[in-house]
Amino acid sequence: MAYRTTEARQDRDLELRERILDCALARVAAGGFAALTMQGLAEDVGIATGSLYRHFRGKGELAAEVFARASQHEVDMLGQALRAPGSVAARLTAGLEQFAARAWHSRRLAFALIAEPVDPEVDEQRLRYREAYAGLFAELLEEGVQVGVLRQQPIPLSAACLVGAIAEALVGPLSPPARAARESGRPSLELADVSQALVTFCLRAVGAHLPTEEQ
Amino acid sequence: MAYRTTEARQDRDLELRERILDCALARVAAGGFAALTMQGLAEDVGIATGSLYRHFRGKGELAAEVFARASQHEVDMLGQALRAPGSVAARLTAGLEQFAARAWHSRRLAFALIAEPVDPEVDEQRLRYREAYAGLFAELLEEGVQVGVLRQQPIPLSAACLVGAIAEALVGPLSPPARAARESGRPSLELADVSQALVTFCLRAVGAHLPTEEQ
Repeated sequence: MAYRTTEARQDRDLELRERILDCALARVAAGGFAALTMQGLAEDVGIATGSLYRHFRGKGELAAEVFARASQHEVDMLGQALRAPGSVAARLTAGLEQFAARAWHSRRLAFALIAEPVDPEVDEQRLRYREAYAGLFAELLEEGVQVGVLRQQPIPLSAACLVGAIAEALVGPLSPPARAARESGRPSLELADVSQALVTFCLRAVGAHLPTEEQ
Repeated sequence: MAYRTTEARQDRDLELRERILDCALARVAAGGFAALTMQGLAEDVGIATGSLYRHFRGKGELAAEVFARASQHEVDMLGQALRAPGSVAARLTAGLEQFAARAWHSRRLAFALIAEPVDPEVDEQRLRYREAYAGLFAELLEEGVQVGVLRQQPIPLSAACLVGAIAEALVGPLSPPARAARESGRPSLELADVSQALVTFCLRAVGAHLPTEEQ
C-alpha cells in the first residue's frame, strides 16, 4: 500500500515535470530564453515558485533541458529527411530546406536555440547538439563520396562546416532586428531566398554536381 | 593644481585598467574564460578584489571586454589579409589560412573566443563580431562577383555561411577533447589538414575556380 502511494506520487511528479517543460518551451517559443523566468513559469504552470525548484535546480538547468528537448526533435526531423530515399544531393537539399523552413516558422524558438545569448549550461548543449547534426551530415557525405556523386573531402570537417554555415545563414534573418523589419513591413529576406542560397552554398561546398550551373 | 591631481589620477586609473585587461587576457589565453575569476585576477594584478570592481561591474563585463579586444585584433588581421594585393581566390585562401594558423597557435584563446560556454555578455559580443567578420568576407565576395571570378550569389548570406563554416571547422580541433588527444600523443588533426579542408570547402562554396580540380 505504501509502495503504491510512492509510485503514484512518482507518476504525479513526472507528469508535473512534463507540464513544467511544456510550459517552459511555450515561453521560449514566445519570447526566447529571456522570457523563461522561474516566477513567470511557476505562474503559467499554476504552482509555487518553490515547487519549481524541487524539479529544477535553477534557470540554467531548466533552460538546458528545454534546449535539449527542442534540439533533439530537430535532429530527429533532419535525420529523417537526410535518410529518406533519393539521391544524395536531393536529400541534402530536402534536409536543408526543411531545416530552414522549420526555423522560419518558429523564428523566436529557432533564434533562441541557435544564438540567443543565454546561460553557459545552454552553450554546452549547443556544442553537443552541433555534433549530433554534424554526425548526420557526415553519414550522408560518406555515402556521397563512396558512390562518387560528391568529391573526396575530409568528411568530419566538411560536416562541421555545413553545420556552421547553416546556423550562421539563419542567425541574421532570424535575429531580432530582422524580425522587427519584417513586422514593420520593411524589406526583409524571404524564406525561399535564404533557403535557396543556403542549398546552393552547401551543395557547391561539398562538391556536388549542380544541374542548374554550367560546368 | 587640483585639476592636475585629478588628471594624474585619471591617467593612473586608465593605466591600471589596461593592466587589468592584459592580465585578464593572459588568464583566458592560459585557461579559457573559466580561469577568469575576479579573485585570481586581482592577485595577478596585485590589487584588492574590491579595487577590480571599481573598474568592472563584474565578471561578465570584464569577460566581454577581453573578448571584444581579442576579437577586434583578429578582425583587423583578417581584414589586412583579405585586402592585400592578389587575386580574390588567393586572398580568401590567405585569409583563411592565417585565421586557422592564428587560432592553432593560441588554441585555448581561440576556443574561448569561438565557443567556450560563458556569460551571456560574451555571447552578445560573439554575435557582433561575427557580423564584423561577415562584413569583411562580403567585401571580398562583392569584388569577386563583380570581376567575374566568383559565381553570382546573395553576398550577405554567403558571407555569413563562410563565418559559420570557419568557426565550426575550428571548434572541434580546438576543443578540450581534441587538445587532450594531442597532448597525450593520440592521433589528432594537424593544422595543415584543417586549413586545407577549410580553404577547399570555402572556395568551392563561393563558386571559385579551383585550379587543382578537373572542371
